[in-house]
Amino acid sequence: MRKEILLSDIAIKGGFWAQKQQMCKEITIPSVYSQFLASGRIGAFDFSTPYPENRPPHIFWDSDVAKWMEGACYQLIKHPDHQLQGKVETLIDHIERYQAEDGYFNLYFQRVEPQKRYTHRSKHELYCAGHLMEAAVAYYELTGSTRFISIMEKYADLIDRVFRIEKSAAFLTPGHEEIELALFRMYYASKNEKYLRLALYFLEMRGNNEIDFAEQTENRAYNQSHLPVREQREAVGHAVRATYLYSAMADAAIVTGDEKLKTACIDLYRDITRRKMYVTGGLGSTPVGEAFTLPYDLPNRTAYAETCASVGMVFFCFWMMKLDPENAAEYADTIERELYNGILSGISLDGSKFFYENPLEFRVSDRYRNTSTTKRDRFPSIARSEIFSCSCCPPNICRLLPSVEKYIMTHDMDRSISIWQFADCEAKTSEWSVTMKTDFPVSGKVKITCQGVKRLSVRVPAWCRSYITDTPTREENRCLVFDNPETVSLNFDMPARLVSADPRNADCAGKAAVMRGPLVYCAEGIDNENKVFACTISRMPDFKEGSCAEFGIPTISANGYLRAEGDNPYPDLTDRGIRCRIHLIPYFAMENRGETDMVVWLPIGD
Amino acid sequence: MRKEILLSDIAIKGGFWAQKQQMCKEITIPSVYSQFLASGRIGAFDFSTPYPENRPPHIFWDSDVAKWMEGACYQLIKHPDHQLQGKVETLIDHIERYQAEDGYFNLYFQRVEPQKRYTHRSKHELYCAGHLMEAAVAYYELTGSTRFISIMEKYADLIDRVFRIEKSAAFLTPGHEEIELALFRMYYASKNEKYLRLALYFLEMRGNNEIDFAEQTENRAYNQSHLPVREQREAVGHAVRATYLYSAMADAAIVTGDEKLKTACIDLYRDITRRKMYVTGGLGSTPVGEAFTLPYDLPNRTAYAETCASVGMVFFCFWMMKLDPENAAEYADTIERELYNGILSGISLDGSKFFYENPLEFRVSDRYRNTSTTKRDRFPSIARSEIFSCSCCPPNICRLLPSVEKYIMTHDMDRSISIWQFADCEAKTSEWSVTMKTDFPVSGKVKITCQGVKRLSVRVPAWCRSYITDTPTREENRCLVFDNPETVSLNFDMPARLVSADPRNADCAGKAAVMRGPLVYCAEGIDNENKVFACTISRMPDFKEGSCAEFGIPTISANGYLRAEGDNPYPDLTDRGIRCRIHLIPYFAMENRGETDMVVWLPIGD
Repeated sequence: MRKEILLSDIAIKGGFWAQKQQMCKEITIPSVYSQFLASGRIGAFDFSTPYPENRPPHIFWDSDVAKWMEGACYQLIKHPDHQLQGKVETLIDHIERYQAEDGYFNLYFQRVEPQKRYTHRSKHELYCAGHLMEAAVAYYELTGSTRFISIMEKYADLIDRVFRIEKSAAFLTPGHEEIELALFRMYYASKNEKYLRLALYFLEMRGNNEIDFAEQTENRAYNQSHLPVREQREAVGHAVRATYLYSAMADAAIVTGDEKLKTACIDLYRDITRRKMYVTGGLGSTPVGEAFTLPYDLPNRTAYAETCASVGMVFFCFWMMKLDPENAAEYADTIERELYNGILSGISLDGSKFFYENPLEFRVSDRYRNTSTTKRDRFPSIARSEIFSCSCCPPNICRLLPSVEKYIMTHDMDRSISIWQFADCEAKTSEWSVTMKTDFPVSGKVKITCQGVKRLSVRVPAWCRSYITDTPTREENRCLVFDNPETVSLNFDMPARLVSADPRNADCAGKAAVMRGPLVYCAEGIDNENKVFACTISRMPDFKEGSCAEFGIPTISANGYLRAEGDNPYPDLTDRGIRCRIHLIPYFAMENRGETDMVVWLPIGD
Repeated sequence: MRKEILLSDIAIKGGFWAQKQQMCKEITIPSVYSQFLASGRIGAFDFSTPYPENRPPHIFWDSDVAKWMEGACYQLIKHPDHQLQGKVETLIDHIERYQAEDGYFNLYFQRVEPQKRYTHRSKHELYCAGHLMEAAVAYYELTGSTRFISIMEKYADLIDRVFRIEKSAAFLTPGHEEIELALFRMYYASKNEKYLRLALYFLEMRGNNEIDFAEQTENRAYNQSHLPVREQREAVGHAVRATYLYSAMADAAIVTGDEKLKTACIDLYRDITRRKMYVTGGLGSTPVGEAFTLPYDLPNRTAYAETCASVGMVFFCFWMMKLDPENAAEYADTIERELYNGILSGISLDGSKFFYENPLEFRVSDRYRNTSTTKRDRFPSIARSEIFSCSCCPPNICRLLPSVEKYIMTHDMDRSISIWQFADCEAKTSEWSVTMKTDFPVSGKVKITCQGVKRLSVRVPAWCRSYITDTPTREENRCLVFDNPETVSLNFDMPARLVSADPRNADCAGKAAVMRGPLVYCAEGIDNENKVFACTISRMPDFKEGSCAEFGIPTISANGYLRAEGDNPYPDLTDRGIRCRIHLIPYFAMENRGETDMVVWLPIGD
């Protein structure tokens, strides 16, 4: 059975992710804390100080702060910092002090509507509890102390009693899934089966009862309550809820060996990745319900593609690797797609600002469109923000970046190591060590040095058409396998390439996107004389790679055509336009240089 | 000065428009009447019968019925019909009987909120009054009787007193423009300057006062009240309101010779036609406010393109022909574009159903998209309806089709005739006669026989690249001029062609549309194996014309490529797909054979 490698046993040492983690440490984690402080989220944990009358705690706030705490703990594992740890400890102090006698803890319901506890399925109590549990597990991983986990154990016992034993709440299962996967994390950390039992109970009851719908105004599919989980085969509803639920379903299938649940997980994964995912990994194409829509309905300009949904997809894929090991390379491909595109686009290059929505096309003019009534056409925001009123995405990035090591490799009992992602890092346990040197994704060159490793397997990325290795190897399940390896050198060829979209994806008809390795590229107005929509790209692009200086990744230029503007809005079709070079940058780096048009999918011009 | 030809002096005799007029007579006018009867609109004019409690008269109802009356009158000029005329007379009887002592008439305000008269700018009182005036003028054209026009004169006198003299209403100018152009029609019919004075007053005060905004919640641009009319240079706000206003502005500039107003009209026309009009003539690209947005912001799938706005554009262009005679051919081009595309698409081929919105792309799946919350993404309806709750478009078609003769030709005092549109028709006055034989737009062959005509000018359509005539001629202002003509034979070459869009129109980037003469074509799923979004069209289309049997116009087929579906949603770009023929039908005929995907702009595949 493949096992996760503890964050204390693996560290990124250089390259692309070291830079991102340093940015996260120096800017992101402090900045999100400052924003949460200024917005009252941090102060709300101190019940002794009255909250401002016009700004009561919001039903999401526990989860926002809990995700930040979780991220801070992961970072503290590598980078001890008394001040930062003090902030975490103070928050735990408050939780401990103000936790109700019976174990309950919730900023909104304890401080604003204490009489309404567990009366509204839509009000995120169990969601907040789940995030606090995840933070408690991270704190345990950091300190080995059960202080926080004990607080949450008391809370989990209350939830177990109210929901599973007494069934005394107004609903049976969470309106926003999250606690299920958190309970699995509590179970993995403690081995205490009571968490497993409660997680399985919530999964079992979902879509299996009428009580949950007493006050739900949305369609049942909105929070994946339309069918019992084993019968769910198509990804529906709110995309973040969906990925969190599917993660927990994968956990459950791993632990219980439930084959029907496994089949459901595989079908849901395929429905998403074959039919409902943007090329950037973005999930959930409509702002209405932040939801999945129909297969292949993936408009670029209005793409919702919430950052959190991409983070949730990483969790889902990670457990799928364990649940369905023969196809692990494919799940790792999807993790890679999310990490380098749909997640990183969610944060500015300076680490301080965030996108909630990650569309694949920006028109600056959309910001100014239609002011003739008090209503406006809804388009994604064109500029990242430091915080949102519902600020789930920033702390989700805070917890993902410092824990990105989790996704690099797994190990088996028999000193068999599997490498899934490429990053300059060192992993070391009492039995074995692996050092990976690479400038990935600048190039595909990877050098791996092993000690005590019996079997090394290295994923061949789906985007890779050819590779070179100087070490004898064989391929199994899309991985290269090396027996008793010492030093392995690999070079995954990584030329820029044009990708197309399935013809059922109508919004990409006649268009191509540029990729290089796992990275999706985009063309911005600022690099293309503010004429990205006048450009078409050539099938013979003659790609040239530019400098890595600005984005840590080479820019790319390609042959294209630039069509001329004129007085006649609909002239007869004549030539293709004049030849030009189109200048592209990594998608994740978009919208970092002021408002500018941006496009991923370029019409093909020849 | 070019003059309109009276509907009594010109008649369509055969061909395309004869078929449409026959459909209108046999189906559309009776069907819209039945719908208006069933919905309570007709009954509401009889104040002696209480309206159903749950269905009081709506503030639009007078205008809906008035437009139908106007259309019925135009039709009765050619096709006397006692029963139909009886319906019109009965409605006039009711208006006469229930008109208030002081001249006021309004279904909603007299029957539902009599104390609220003239208190809400947004409630369409003057708009309804204007449509009743237009109907009265049409009735006068039909009968020569001033019965209805006298009723409306009394009403106009009241409006003049309340708005212009006493200024006792809560607002100064109409919240929905329309009465201005109606007052010009009253003026043209009666030569009584009081109508002219009031029309000019309303135009003068528009955007020139603060009183109008006491209760207006929309941006002032919504109803073109943001600037004095002479200073308006860009088309903004609600598109139907805009075209009605601009028509009246053109009327005013013609009558007064106001050069500043003329310049404003020309600039507004150019802003619309160069930057804010779909290739189909559709105007107003957003449902939010049914409004114009920014230049070149013309999304196809969500195009609003209200049928009424295209009708209004015909009015505007018609007066622009008179105001700016040197460019009359261009205005006539736009009338032609509207007539054959954006207006005709608004009615089903059987004459009984209507589109309010006329998008340039339909995806059947949009109808089923996103049911995961109680809200839905908004997409245009994919099926025409017999009536709408706000049913302005159906009666606008009722009055346009039977009066399409108005746009065919104009005449000057000196027996100089100008032909602007091509239709099989006869025009005859005491001084001259013109007979046009043509199967246009099946072909571009036109034969014109004249008697008593000193000078004949015939517009060369903008789409025409070459023509043949056997008669000596010269070209002036894009028109062929024939002196003392007897018989003129013309053949405008009308091959199918590919048109492109200006590169600033981002939604058409890399795409082409098929046109033939004035007709825009579209590809429907039903003719293309339900794979229109998988098709790209070739630059070497090898167009073939098909049968006229189904739509009265030839279908067209073109070379294209069909891309293959697969498991990988984002494969590397390889071949163009397999060669195929794309089957196209006239845009106006779309969505007449059940729900099917439809697309006007096809990606270019080579």
